[in-house]
Amino acid sequence: MICPRAVFITGANKGLGLEFVRQFLRLDNPPQQLFATCRDPENAVELRKLEDQNACVQVLKLDITCEADIKSAAREVESSLNNKGLNLLINNAGVTRKRQYVGNLNKEHLLEQFSTNAVGPLLVTQSLLPMLLKAAESRDTLVSCNKAAIVNISSILGSITESRSGGMYGYRPSKAALNMITKSLHEELKEKDILVTALHPGWVRTDIGGPEADMSPEESAKACLMVLSKLSKENSGRFLSYDGKMIDW
Amino acid sequence: MICPRAVFITGANKGLGLEFVRQFLRLDNPPQQLFATCRDPENAVELRKLEDQNACVQVLKLDITCEADIKSAAREVESSLNNKGLNLLINNAGVTRKRQYVGNLNKEHLLEQFSTNAVGPLLVTQSLLPMLLKAAESRDTLVSCNKAAIVNISSILGSITESRSGGMYGYRPSKAALNMITKSLHEELKEKDILVTALHPGWVRTDIGGPEADMSPEESAKACLMVLSKLSKENSGRFLSYDGKMIDW
Repeated sequence: MICPRAVFITGANKGLGLEFVRQFLRLDNPPQQLFATCRDPENAVELRKLEDQNACVQVLKLDITCEADIKSAAREVESSLNNKGLNLLINNAGVTRKRQYVGNLNKEHLLEQFSTNAVGPLLVTQSLLPMLLKAAESRDTLVSCNKAAIVNISSILGSITESRSGGMYGYRPSKAALNMITKSLHEELKEKDILVTALHPGWVRTDIGGPEADMSPEESAKACLMVLSKLSKENSGRFLSYDGKMIDW
Repeated sequence: MICPRAVFITGANKGLGLEFVRQFLRLDNPPQQLFATCRDPENAVELRKLEDQNACVQVLKLDITCEADIKSAAREVESSLNNKGLNLLINNAGVTRKRQYVGNLNKEHLLEQFSTNAVGPLLVTQSLLPMLLKAAESRDTLVSCNKAAIVNISSILGSITESRSGGMYGYRPSKAALNMITKSLHEELKEKDILVTALHPGWVRTDIGGPEADMSPEESAKACLMVLSKLSKENSGRFLSYDGKMIDW
Protein backbone atom coordinates (compact mmCIF):
# COMPACT_ATOMS: atom_id res chain seq x y z
CA MET A 1 0.00 0.00 0.00
CA ILE A 2 1.24 3.46 -0.81
CA CYS A 3 1.61 5.68 2.25
CA PRO A 4 4.71 7.92 2.07
CA ARG A 5 4.86 10.44 4.93
CA ALA A 6 6.30 13.30 2.85
CA VAL A 7 5.90 13.80 -0.91
CA PHE A 8 7.20 16.48 -3.30
CA ILE A 9 5.61 17.03 -6.74
CA THR A 10 6.64 19.46 -9.49
CA GLY A 11 4.20 20.92 -12.02
CA ALA A 12 1.33 20.39 -9.58
CA ASN A 13 -0.94 23.20 -10.73
CA LYS A 14 -2.63 21.34 -13.58
CA GLY A 15 -2.91 18.15 -15.59
CA LEU A 16 -1.27 15.05 -14.20
CA GLY A 17 0.57 16.90 -11.40
CA LEU A 18 -2.64 18.35 -9.96
CA GLU A 19 -4.29 14.96 -10.22
CA PHE A 20 -1.40 13.34 -8.34
CA VAL A 21 -2.10 15.76 -5.49
CA ARG A 22 -5.79 14.87 -5.52
CA GLN A 23 -5.11 11.13 -5.55
CA PHE A 24 -2.62 11.36 -2.70
CA LEU A 25 -5.21 13.22 -0.64
CA ARG A 26 -7.72 10.42 -1.25
CA LEU A 27 -5.47 7.65 0.07
CA ASP A 28 -6.43 5.82 3.25
CA ASN A 29 -3.25 7.22 4.74
CA PRO A 30 -2.59 10.48 2.90
CA PRO A 31 0.85 12.07 3.24
CA GLN A 32 1.39 14.19 6.33
CA GLN A 33 3.34 16.62 4.17
CA LEU A 34 2.59 17.14 0.51
CA PHE A 35 4.76 19.75 -1.19
CA ALA A 36 3.01 20.80 -4.38
CA THR A 37 5.10 23.07 -6.55
CA CYS A 38 4.44 25.12 -9.66
CA ARG A 39 5.87 28.10 -11.53
CA ASP A 40 3.11 30.51 -10.63
CA PRO A 41 1.28 29.75 -7.35
CA GLU A 42 -0.60 33.07 -7.58
CA ASN A 43 -2.61 31.72 -10.48
CA ALA A 44 -2.83 28.10 -9.39
CA VAL A 45 -6.48 28.38 -8.35
CA GLU A 46 -7.33 24.69 -8.08
CA LEU A 47 -4.14 23.85 -6.23
CA ARG A 48 -4.63 26.75 -3.82
CA LYS A 49 -8.11 25.44 -3.07
CA LEU A 50 -6.63 22.04 -2.14
CA GLU A 51 -4.10 23.79 0.07
CA ASP A 52 -6.86 25.69 1.86
CA GLN A 53 -8.84 22.50 2.45
CA ASN A 54 -5.96 20.21 3.47
CA ALA A 55 -3.45 21.07 6.17
CA CYS A 56 -0.87 18.67 4.71
CA VAL A 57 -0.64 20.52 1.38
CA GLN A 58 2.02 23.18 1.06
CA VAL A 59 2.22 25.04 -2.25
CA LEU A 60 5.68 26.29 -3.25
CA LYS A 61 6.87 28.41 -6.13
CA LEU A 62 9.24 26.44 -8.35
CA ASP A 63 10.32 27.03 -11.93
CA ILE A 64 12.57 23.99 -12.39
CA THR A 65 14.75 25.86 -14.91
CA CYS A 66 15.58 28.49 -12.27
CA GLU A 67 18.40 27.61 -9.86
CA ALA A 68 17.36 30.27 -7.34
CA ASP A 69 13.82 28.82 -7.21
CA ILE A 70 15.23 25.32 -6.72
CA LYS A 71 17.42 26.41 -3.83
CA SER A 72 14.69 28.39 -2.19
CA ALA A 73 12.13 25.56 -2.48
CA ALA A 74 14.64 23.08 -1.03
CA ARG A 75 15.28 25.39 1.92
CA GLU A 76 11.56 25.70 2.64
CA VAL A 77 11.07 21.93 2.42
CA GLU A 78 14.01 21.26 4.71
CA SER A 79 12.71 23.69 7.28
CA SER A 80 9.17 22.36 7.05
CA LEU A 81 10.29 18.72 7.33
CA ASN A 82 12.00 19.70 10.56
CA ASN A 83 14.64 16.99 10.48
CA LYS A 84 12.35 14.33 9.05
CA GLY A 85 13.11 12.89 5.61
CA LEU A 86 11.44 13.26 2.22
CA ASN A 87 10.05 9.93 1.03
CA LEU A 88 8.92 10.53 -2.51
CA LEU A 89 9.97 13.01 -5.17
CA ILE A 90 7.84 13.05 -8.33
CA ASN A 91 9.56 15.00 -11.11
CA ASN A 92 6.41 15.62 -13.09
CA ALA A 93 6.91 19.09 -14.62
CA GLY A 94 7.71 18.98 -18.32
CA VAL A 95 7.25 20.91 -21.50
CA THR A 96 6.67 20.18 -25.14
CA ARG A 97 6.76 22.39 -28.19
CA LYS A 98 5.09 22.26 -31.54
CA ARG A 99 6.18 19.20 -33.50
CA GLN A 100 9.49 20.01 -35.15
CA TYR A 101 10.76 18.33 -38.30
CA VAL A 102 14.32 18.44 -39.47
CA GLY A 103 13.44 21.25 -41.84
CA ASN A 104 11.99 23.62 -39.22
CA LEU A 105 14.08 23.32 -36.09
CA ASN A 106 14.31 26.10 -33.54
CA LYS A 107 17.45 26.01 -31.40
CA GLU A 108 15.92 27.96 -28.53
CA HIS A 109 12.92 25.60 -28.29
CA LEU A 110 15.20 22.55 -28.47
CA LEU A 111 17.37 23.77 -25.60
CA GLU A 112 14.31 24.83 -23.57
CA GLN A 113 13.05 21.24 -23.70
CA PHE A 114 16.42 19.80 -22.59
CA SER A 115 16.53 22.38 -19.81
CA THR A 116 13.01 21.64 -18.52
CA ASN A 117 12.65 17.92 -19.21
CA ALA A 118 16.15 16.67 -18.37
CA VAL A 119 18.34 19.19 -16.55
CA GLY A 120 15.51 20.53 -14.35
CA PRO A 121 14.53 17.19 -12.79
CA LEU A 122 18.22 16.45 -12.17
CA LEU A 123 18.84 19.74 -10.38
CA VAL A 124 15.65 19.39 -8.32
CA THR A 125 16.81 15.90 -7.33
CA GLN A 126 20.22 17.23 -6.33
CA SER A 127 18.69 19.90 -4.11
CA LEU A 128 16.34 17.47 -2.33
CA LEU A 129 18.83 14.62 -2.06
CA PRO A 130 19.89 15.30 1.55
CA MET A 131 16.25 14.92 2.62
CA LEU A 132 15.76 11.77 0.54
CA LEU A 133 18.94 10.32 2.08
CA LYS A 134 17.59 11.17 5.49
CA ALA A 135 14.40 9.21 4.74
CA ALA A 136 16.42 6.32 3.30
CA GLU A 137 18.27 5.93 6.61
CA SER A 138 15.08 4.97 8.43
CA ARG A 139 15.23 1.38 9.66
CA ASP A 140 11.53 0.77 10.23
CA THR A 141 10.39 0.94 6.60
CA LEU A 142 11.12 -1.49 3.75
CA VAL A 143 12.84 -0.13 0.64
CA SER A 144 9.87 1.25 -1.30
CA CYS A 145 8.37 4.54 -2.33
CA ASN A 146 7.09 4.84 1.24
CA LYS A 147 10.72 5.03 2.31
CA ALA A 148 12.73 6.89 -0.36
CA ALA A 149 12.10 7.11 -4.10
CA ILE A 150 12.59 9.40 -7.08
CA VAL A 151 10.03 9.04 -9.85
CA ASN A 152 10.75 10.78 -13.14
CA ILE A 153 7.66 11.24 -15.30
CA SER A 154 8.96 10.29 -18.71
CA SER A 155 7.12 9.26 -21.85
CA ILE A 156 7.12 6.31 -24.18
CA LEU A 157 7.99 8.93 -26.80
CA GLY A 158 11.40 8.94 -25.10
CA SER A 159 11.93 5.23 -25.83
CA ILE A 160 14.51 5.01 -28.62
CA THR A 161 13.64 1.35 -29.13
CA GLU A 162 9.90 2.00 -29.51
CA SER A 163 10.27 5.14 -31.64
CA ARG A 164 8.75 4.66 -35.08
CA SER A 165 8.31 8.22 -36.34
CA GLY A 166 10.43 11.27 -37.02
CA GLY A 167 9.99 14.77 -35.70
CA MET A 168 9.63 15.92 -32.07
CA TYR A 169 13.37 16.67 -31.96
CA GLY A 170 13.08 18.48 -28.66
CA TYR A 171 10.62 16.30 -26.76
CA ARG A 172 11.81 12.80 -27.68
CA PRO A 173 15.56 13.36 -27.10
CA SER A 174 14.95 15.29 -23.86
CA LYS A 175 12.89 12.39 -22.50
CA ALA A 176 15.55 9.90 -23.65
CA ALA A 177 18.04 12.06 -21.73
CA LEU A 178 15.76 11.96 -18.67
CA ASN A 179 15.69 8.18 -18.99
CA MET A 180 19.49 8.05 -18.96
CA ILE A 181 19.51 10.38 -15.95
CA THR A 182 17.10 7.95 -14.24
CA LYS A 183 19.43 5.03 -14.92
CA SER A 184 22.49 6.95 -13.70
CA LEU A 185 20.73 8.12 -10.53
CA HIS A 186 19.67 4.54 -9.90
CA GLU A 187 23.26 3.32 -10.25
CA GLU A 188 24.55 6.08 -8.00
CA LEU A 189 21.87 5.78 -5.30
CA LYS A 190 21.01 2.08 -5.17
CA GLU A 191 23.47 1.42 -2.35
CA LYS A 192 21.71 4.13 -0.36
CA ASP A 193 18.30 2.41 -0.65
CA ILE A 194 16.77 5.16 -2.79
CA LEU A 195 14.63 3.81 -5.64
CA VAL A 196 14.73 5.65 -8.97
CA THR A 197 12.28 5.00 -11.79
CA ALA A 198 11.20 6.49 -15.10
CA LEU A 199 7.43 6.28 -15.50
CA HIS A 200 5.34 6.57 -18.68
CA PRO A 201 1.96 7.86 -17.48
CA GLY A 202 0.11 6.85 -20.65
CA TRP A 203 -1.31 9.19 -23.25
CA VAL A 204 -3.18 11.62 -21.06
CA ARG A 205 -5.57 14.49 -21.82
CA THR A 206 -3.28 17.29 -20.61
CA ASP A 207 -1.64 20.29 -22.28
CA ILE A 208 1.09 17.94 -23.51
CA GLY A 209 -1.12 14.99 -24.48
CA GLY A 210 -3.85 17.06 -26.10
CA PRO A 211 -7.64 16.56 -26.08
CA GLU A 212 -7.55 13.40 -28.23
CA ALA A 213 -5.54 11.39 -25.70
CA ASP A 214 -6.67 8.02 -24.31
CA MET A 215 -6.85 8.67 -20.59
CA SER A 216 -8.09 11.30 -18.19
CA PRO A 217 -5.54 12.67 -15.72
CA GLU A 218 -7.51 10.88 -13.00
CA GLU A 219 -7.23 7.48 -14.68
CA SER A 220 -3.52 8.02 -15.30
CA ALA A 221 -2.69 9.24 -11.79
CA LYS A 222 -4.57 6.29 -10.23
CA ALA A 223 -2.74 3.83 -12.45
CA CYS A 224 0.61 5.50 -11.70
CA LEU A 225 0.04 5.30 -7.93
CA MET A 226 -0.68 1.59 -8.35
CA VAL A 227 2.69 1.20 -10.11
CA LEU A 228 4.43 3.27 -7.44
CA SER A 229 2.95 1.07 -4.72
CA LYS A 230 4.87 -1.84 -6.27
CA LEU A 231 8.26 -0.16 -6.63
CA SER A 232 11.05 -2.26 -5.18
CA LYS A 233 14.75 -2.93 -5.49
CA GLU A 234 13.86 -5.36 -8.28
CA ASN A 235 12.32 -2.82 -10.62
CA SER A 236 14.35 0.26 -9.63
CA GLY A 237 16.36 1.79 -12.47
CA ARG A 238 13.75 0.68 -14.99
CA PHE A 239 11.37 2.38 -17.41
CA LEU A 240 7.85 1.43 -16.33
CA SER A 241 4.51 2.05 -17.96
CA TYR A 242 1.33 3.11 -16.13
CA ASP A 243 0.07 -0.46 -16.57
CA GLY A 244 3.11 -1.84 -14.74
CA LYS A 245 4.83 -3.22 -17.83
CA MET A 246 8.49 -2.55 -18.52
CA ILE A 247 9.38 -0.43 -21.55
CA ASP A 248 12.63 -0.87 -23.47
CA TRP A 249 14.87 2.22 -23.33
CA MET B 1 34.18 -0.32 -50.68
CA ILE B 2 33.94 3.15 -49.25
CA CYS B 3 34.26 5.89 -51.87
CA PRO B 4 31.91 8.83 -51.24
CA ARG B 5 32.55 11.74 -53.62
CA ALA B 6 31.91 14.47 -51.03
CA VAL B 7 32.34 14.19 -47.25
CA PHE B 8 31.77 16.65 -44.41
CA ILE B 9 33.37 16.14 -40.95
CA THR B 10 32.99 18.24 -37.80
CA GLY B 11 35.68 18.49 -35.12
CA ALA B 12 38.35 17.63 -37.69
CA ASN B 13 41.28 19.46 -36.11
CA LYS B 14 42.30 16.73 -33.67
CA GLY B 15 41.64 13.29 -32.27
CA LEU B 16 39.25 11.05 -34.14
CA GLY B 17 38.06 13.81 -36.52
CA LEU B 18 41.57 14.54 -37.76
CA GLU B 19 42.21 10.83 -38.15
CA PHE B 20 39.02 10.43 -40.21
CA VAL B 21 40.44 13.03 -42.60
CA ARG B 22 43.75 11.15 -42.82
CA GLN B 23 42.06 7.80 -43.44
CA PHE B 24 39.78 9.21 -46.13
CA LEU B 25 42.83 10.61 -47.90
CA ARG B 26 44.46 7.15 -47.86
CA LEU B 27 41.54 5.41 -49.56
CA ASP B 28 42.03 3.97 -53.05
CA ASN B 29 39.39 6.43 -54.18
CA PRO B 30 39.64 9.36 -51.80
CA PRO B 31 36.79 11.88 -51.76
CA GLN B 32 36.93 14.57 -54.42
CA GLN B 33 35.70 17.04 -51.82
CA LEU B 34 36.46 16.67 -48.15
CA PHE B 35 35.07 19.45 -45.98
CA ALA B 36 36.97 19.39 -42.70
CA THR B 37 35.55 21.75 -40.10
CA CYS B 38 36.67 22.95 -36.69
CA ARG B 39 36.08 25.84 -34.28
CA ASP B 40 39.43 27.51 -34.83
CA PRO B 41 41.05 26.85 -38.24
CA GLU B 42 43.77 29.44 -37.49
CA ASN B 43 45.26 27.10 -34.91
CA ALA B 44 44.49 23.79 -36.62
CA VAL B 45 48.10 23.23 -37.69
CA GLU B 46 47.88 19.55 -38.62
CA LEU B 47 44.64 19.96 -40.51
CA ARG B 48 45.98 22.98 -42.39
CA LYS B 49 48.96 20.90 -43.45
CA LEU B 50 46.62 18.28 -44.92
CA GLU B 51 44.72 21.03 -46.71
CA ASP B 52 47.94 22.36 -48.24
CA GLN B 53 48.97 18.90 -49.42
CA ASN B 54 45.60 17.72 -50.74
CA ALA B 55 43.49 19.70 -53.19
CA CYS B 56 40.31 17.90 -52.10
CA VAL B 57 40.53 19.12 -48.50
CA GLN B 58 38.71 22.32 -47.65
CA VAL B 59 38.95 23.56 -44.07
CA LEU B 60 35.96 25.52 -42.78
CA LYS B 61 35.33 27.35 -39.53
CA LEU B 62 32.45 25.75 -37.63
CA ASP B 63 31.50 25.99 -33.99
CA ILE B 64 28.48 23.66 -34.01
CA THR B 65 26.85 25.59 -31.15
CA CYS B 66 26.85 28.76 -33.26
CA GLU B 67 23.96 29.14 -35.70
CA ALA B 68 25.75 31.80 -37.75
CA ASP B 69 28.74 29.47 -38.22
CA ILE B 70 26.42 26.63 -39.27
CA LYS B 71 24.69 28.79 -41.87
CA SER B 72 27.92 30.19 -43.22
CA ALA B 73 29.58 26.75 -43.50
CA ALA B 74 26.52 25.36 -45.29
CA ARG B 75 26.61 28.22 -47.78
CA GLU B 76 30.29 27.62 -48.52
CA VAL B 77 29.72 23.89 -48.99
CA GLU B 78 26.76 24.47 -51.28
CA SER B 79 28.72 26.85 -53.40
CA SER B 80 31.75 24.57 -53.51
CA LEU B 81 29.68 21.49 -54.41
CA ASN B 82 28.38 23.45 -57.36
CA ASN B 83 25.08 21.62 -57.68
CA LYS B 84 26.52 18.21 -56.80
CA GLY B 85 25.31 16.47 -53.65
CA LEU B 86 26.94 15.75 -50.30
CA ASN B 87 27.31 12.02 -49.74
CA LEU B 88 28.48 11.65 -46.18
CA LEU B 89 28.11 13.84 -43.09
CA ILE B 90 30.08 12.73 -40.04
CA ASN B 91 28.90 14.55 -36.91
CA ASN B 92 32.05 13.93 -34.93
CA ALA B 93 32.51 17.06 -32.80
CA GLY B 94 31.61 16.54 -29.16
CA VAL B 95 32.51 17.68 -25.70
CA THR B 96 32.76 16.19 -22.27
CA ARG B 97 33.23 17.75 -18.87
CA LYS B 98 34.73 16.57 -15.64
CA ARG B 99 32.77 13.66 -14.21
CA GLN B 100 29.77 15.06 -12.37
CA TYR B 101 28.01 13.27 -9.54
CA VAL B 102 24.58 14.16 -8.28
CA GLY B 103 26.14 16.18 -5.47
CA ASN B 104 28.25 18.46 -7.66
CA LEU B 105 26.24 19.31 -10.76
CA ASN B 106 26.88 22.43 -12.77
CA LYS B 107 23.88 23.59 -14.81
CA GLU B 108 25.95 25.51 -17.33
CA HIS B 109 28.18 22.48 -18.05
CA LEU B 110 25.15 20.21 -18.35
CA LEU B 111 23.48 22.47 -20.91
CA GLU B 112 26.75 22.96 -22.79
CA GLN B 113 26.96 19.22 -23.34
CA PHE B 114 23.36 19.00 -24.60
CA SER B 115 24.05 21.94 -26.87
CA THR B 116 27.25 20.48 -28.36
CA ASN B 117 26.54 16.75 -28.34
CA ALA B 118 22.85 16.69 -29.30
CA VAL B 119 21.50 20.00 -30.61
CA GLY B 120 24.65 20.87 -32.61
CA PRO B 121 24.69 17.71 -34.75
CA LEU B 122 20.96 18.14 -35.38
CA LEU B 123 21.33 21.74 -36.57
CA VAL B 124 24.35 20.87 -38.74
CA THR B 125 22.28 18.08 -40.28
CA GLN B 126 19.41 20.46 -40.95
CA SER B 127 21.68 22.93 -42.72
CA LEU B 128 23.29 20.30 -44.96
CA LEU B 129 20.12 18.34 -45.64
CA PRO B 130 19.38 19.90 -49.05
CA MET B 131 22.80 18.72 -50.28
CA LEU B 132 22.33 15.25 -48.79
CA LEU B 133 18.92 15.03 -50.46
CA LYS B 134 20.53 16.07 -53.72
CA ALA B 135 23.03 13.20 -53.41
CA ALA B 136 20.26 10.78 -52.44
CA GLU B 137 18.44 11.49 -55.72
CA SER B 138 21.29 10.01 -57.75
CA ARG B 139 20.17 6.89 -59.60
CA ASP B 140 23.56 5.39 -60.32
CA THR B 141 24.61 4.59 -56.76
CA LEU B 142 23.15 2.00 -54.36
CA VAL B 143 21.83 3.22 -51.03
CA SER B 144 25.01 3.38 -48.96
CA CYS B 145 27.35 5.89 -47.42
CA ASN B 146 28.76 6.43 -50.91
CA LYS B 147 25.34 7.81 -51.83
CA ALA B 148 23.87 9.65 -48.84
CA ALA B 149 24.44 9.04 -45.12
CA ILE B 150 24.54 10.81 -41.79
CA VAL B 151 26.83 9.28 -39.17
CA ASN B 152 26.54 10.54 -35.61
CA ILE B 153 29.57 9.74 -33.50
CA SER B 154 27.97 8.60 -30.26
CA SER B 155 29.39 6.57 -27.39
CA ILE B 156 28.51 3.37 -25.62
CA LEU B 157 28.34 5.63 -22.56
CA GLY B 158 25.10 6.90 -24.15
CA SER B 159 23.55 3.42 -24.07
CA ILE B 160 20.94 3.44 -21.29
CA THR B 161 20.73 -0.34 -21.45
CA GLU B 162 24.49 -0.85 -21.06
CA SER B 163 24.97 1.84 -18.40
CA ARG B 164 26.22 0.37 -15.14
CA SER B 165 27.60 3.39 -13.28
CA GLY B 166 26.39 6.74 -12.04
CA GLY B 167 27.84 10.16 -12.72
CA MET B 168 28.57 11.79 -16.11
CA TYR B 169 25.19 13.55 -15.99
CA GLY B 170 26.06 15.76 -18.93
CA TYR B 171 27.84 13.34 -21.25
CA ARG B 172 25.72 10.20 -20.92
CA PRO B 173 22.29 11.88 -21.30
CA SER B 174 23.49 14.09 -24.17
CA LYS B 175 24.70 11.02 -26.07
CA ALA B 176 21.42 9.21 -25.30
CA ALA B 177 19.69 12.27 -26.75
CA LEU B 178 21.92 12.07 -29.84
CA ASN B 179 20.93 8.43 -30.19
CA MET B 180 17.24 9.38 -30.15
CA ILE B 181 17.95 12.10 -32.71
CA THR B 182 19.63 9.44 -34.86
CA LYS B 183 16.56 7.21 -34.66
CA SER B 184 14.19 10.08 -35.44
CA LEU B 185 16.27 11.26 -38.41
CA HIS B 186 16.31 7.69 -39.68
CA GLU B 187 12.52 7.47 -39.45
CA GLU B 188 12.11 10.85 -41.13
CA LEU B 189 14.66 10.27 -43.92
CA LYS B 190 14.47 6.57 -44.73
CA GLU B 191 11.99 7.12 -47.55
CA LYS B 192 14.48 9.53 -49.09
CA ASP B 193 17.26 6.93 -49.19
CA ILE B 194 19.45 8.71 -46.64
CA LEU B 195 21.06 6.35 -44.13
CA VAL B 196 21.38 7.53 -40.52
CA THR B 197 23.50 5.74 -37.93
CA ALA B 198 24.86 6.27 -34.43
CA LEU B 199 28.42 4.95 -34.16
CA HIS B 200 30.41 4.09 -31.04
CA PRO B 201 34.06 4.58 -32.07
CA GLY B 202 35.49 2.56 -29.18
CA TRP B 203 37.44 3.93 -26.24
CA VAL B 204 39.96 6.10 -28.04
CA ARG B 205 43.02 8.01 -26.86
CA THR B 206 41.64 11.51 -27.49
CA ASP B 207 40.86 14.51 -25.28
CA ILE B 208 37.56 12.83 -24.40
CA GLY B 209 38.83 9.25 -24.03
CA GLY B 210 42.00 10.17 -22.13
CA PRO B 211 45.51 8.64 -22.35
CA GLU B 212 44.49 5.31 -20.78
CA ALA B 213 42.07 4.40 -23.56
CA ASP B 214 42.22 1.15 -25.55
CA MET B 215 42.68 2.36 -29.11
CA SER B 216 44.66 4.93 -31.03
CA PRO B 217 42.65 7.37 -33.15
CA GLU B 218 44.11 5.60 -36.22
CA GLU B 219 42.85 2.16 -35.14
CA SER B 220 39.44 3.60 -34.34
CA ALA B 221 39.05 5.59 -37.55
CA LYS B 222 40.08 2.56 -39.66
CA ALA B 223 37.58 0.35 -37.85
CA CYS B 224 34.85 2.99 -38.20
CA LEU B 225 35.43 3.31 -41.97
CA MET B 226 35.07 -0.45 -42.22
CA VAL B 227 31.69 -0.22 -40.46
CA LEU B 228 30.65 2.69 -42.70
CA SER B 229 31.54 0.68 -45.80
CA LYS B 230 28.84 -1.81 -44.75
CA LEU B 231 26.04 0.65 -44.01
CA SER B 232 22.82 -0.28 -45.72
CA LYS B 233 19.07 0.05 -45.45
CA GLU B 234 19.17 -2.98 -43.14
CA ASN B 235 21.31 -1.42 -40.43
CA SER B 236 20.24 2.21 -40.81
CA GLY B 237 18.66 3.72 -37.72
CA ARG B 238 20.81 1.51 -35.49
CA PHE B 239 23.50 2.03 -32.86
CA LEU B 240 26.64 0.34 -34.18
CA SER B 241 29.98 -0.29 -32.56
CA TYR B 242 33.37 0.16 -34.26
CA ASP B 243 33.57 -3.63 -34.48
CA GLY B 244 30.32 -3.78 -36.45
CA LYS B 245 28.21 -5.15 -33.60
CA MET B 246 24.86 -3.63 -32.72
CA ILE B 247 24.52 -1.89 -29.34
CA ASP B 248 21.23 -1.74 -27.43
CA TRP B 249 19.94 1.81 -26.97
